[in-house]
Amino acid sequence: MLTSRTEVQVRYSETDMMGIAYHANYLPWFEVGRTTLLKEAGFPYLELEKNGYRLPVLAVNVKYKKPAIYDDLLTIETTMTEEPTLRISLDYRVLRGDELLATGSTQHAFINTKGQPIRPPATFVQKMAEIFASIP
Amino acid sequence: MLTSRTEVQVRYSETDMMGIAYHANYLPWFEVGRTTLLKEAGFPYLELEKNGYRLPVLAVNVKYKKPAIYDDLLTIETTMTEEPTLRISLDYRVLRGDELLATGSTQHAFINTKGQPIRPPATFVQKMAEIFASIP
Amino acid sequence: MLTSRTEVQVRYSETDMMGIAYHANYLPWFEVGRTTLLKEAGFPYLELEKNGYRLPVLAVNVKYKKPAIYDDLLTIETTMTEEPTLRISLDYRVLRGDELLATGSTQHAFINTKGQPIRPPATFVQKMAEIFASIP
Amino acid sequence: MLTSRTEVQVRYSETDMMGIAYHANYLPWFEVGRTTLLKEAGFPYLELEKNGYRLPVLAVNVKYKKPAIYDDLLTIETTMTEEPTLRISLDYRVLRGDELLATGSTQHAFINTKGQPIRPPATFVQKMAEIFASIP
Repeated sequence: MLTSRTEVQVRYSETDMMGIAYHANYLPWFEVGRTTLLKEAGFPYLELEKNGYRLPVLAVNVKYKKPAIYDDLLTIETTMTEEPTLRISLDYRVLRGDELLATGSTQHAFINTKGQPIRPPATFVQKMAEIFASIP
Repeated sequence: MLTSRTEVQVRYSETDMMGIAYHANYLPWFEVGRTTLLKEAGFPYLELEKNGYRLPVLAVNVKYKKPAIYDDLLTIETTMTEEPTLRISLDYRVLRGDELLATGSTQHAFINTKGQPIRPPATFVQKMAEIFASIP
Repeated sequence: MLTSRTEVQVRYSETDMMGIAYHANYLPWFEVGRTTLLKEAGFPYLELEKNGYRLPVLAVNVKYKKPAIYDDLLTIETTMTEEPTLRISLDYRVLRGDELLATGSTQHAFINTKGQPIRPPATFVQKMAEIFASIP
Repeated sequence: MLTSRTEVQVRYSETDMMGIAYHANYLPWFEVGRTTLLKEAGFPYLELEKNGYRLPVLAVNVKYKKPAIYDDLLTIETTMTEEPTLRISLDYRVLRGDELLATGSTQHAFINTKGQPIRPPATFVQKMAEIFASIP
């Protein structure tokens, strides 16, 4: 299990007239989470793109438990539960301190610049195998 | 089954560096879809809010099948499959012509301005009962 | 003077906790306005991009006079006051019926895919010359 | 002159199909900048709102010099050049390291919850007078 934590602070632009963070904004926060996880694992997404890989979102789901409000400092916890194969699955938890505000998940697959599914980079596969082998 | 159709055109602001519509933007499009469905059913969301009701999103999921690109004219098809009780479930299909680009669903519940769960407006319950009774 | 009109309806996602349309959203609306103006003039922006042109925003300004709220149907009026040379200047008015909510302007220049300033397409120059010559 | 610095990292959601940060996103970044400046001056915006004040944007302008790209770490430098009276003017600089990417400004006025112009809170006026008196 590979986990990464990063923080976002709710912007005024992210609120809606209900006075809370608009639900769609959790998706960019998840994206900030997986940007951090990939960077920490040694695979900055920008480099993946430079090498011709794209990692689009195939599916997303979110469960909203409690609202986040303007200026809240949130922790985005991103977890890769299983060693990725052709697909990558990520789980997310959005926390305000110890309080769980939302959970979610995304699925991804590597594609090339023409939009065709491709195998992940060999270095990525190897590194992920190492990471998951080292997890007790 | 109550269905509503509305159109959105992909804005440049909605694209990302992958050259496609960023995945989070489907959620505002779903919101445009349910705004239309509620309005067509006689319950403009703005009036619901004026009467002290809020209808937050409790859960959302989306499956992305094919990318939408800038300037695409998309049809958002919103369907209420079951008569709503305390919860409202909506299904969505995003189409470019006949081509299905994405499917999704959202769950909602009525709350008051203090964030407490409340029963839907009586007129809403009655109207929905009529609509679903009239469906063969 | 070349003018184009198009409509946008304020989305819930575009509101903020002040209960009005968040000020940054006027920029995507301006963008919808110039997308329409360019298309009506025979130069869909997507085609310009396919031919290797980019038309980034060099400067923008907006004056907010009255707030727009959720579900408002707004008219975006886009005007090219002067025949474009290397730079393109556009003026915008955001109206709710007859009521003027905001005014603004943007400046643009053509660049190539490497980000270098280039002359506009010859067909664009010629068409704009024709349009402005035909204006009394 | 009251200056504040804060950082934002360009999100994938903030890019567009030109491969750069979409121009409208500089406005939320400015907002992050003034949130920080107000907080550092002892007036968290959330508290101002709780006390019945709103500080809407009356005007904004931005000049874009160089594009920001995905994952760039940007410094938002926010400056209050003059002691605020009924209006507040703020200047912004967006930097990537030493490189100036954009400049801008916003104007604001205090309003009450009914949207009527009001004087700023007395404590705000006093604190600003102190701050500007202490500047050599």
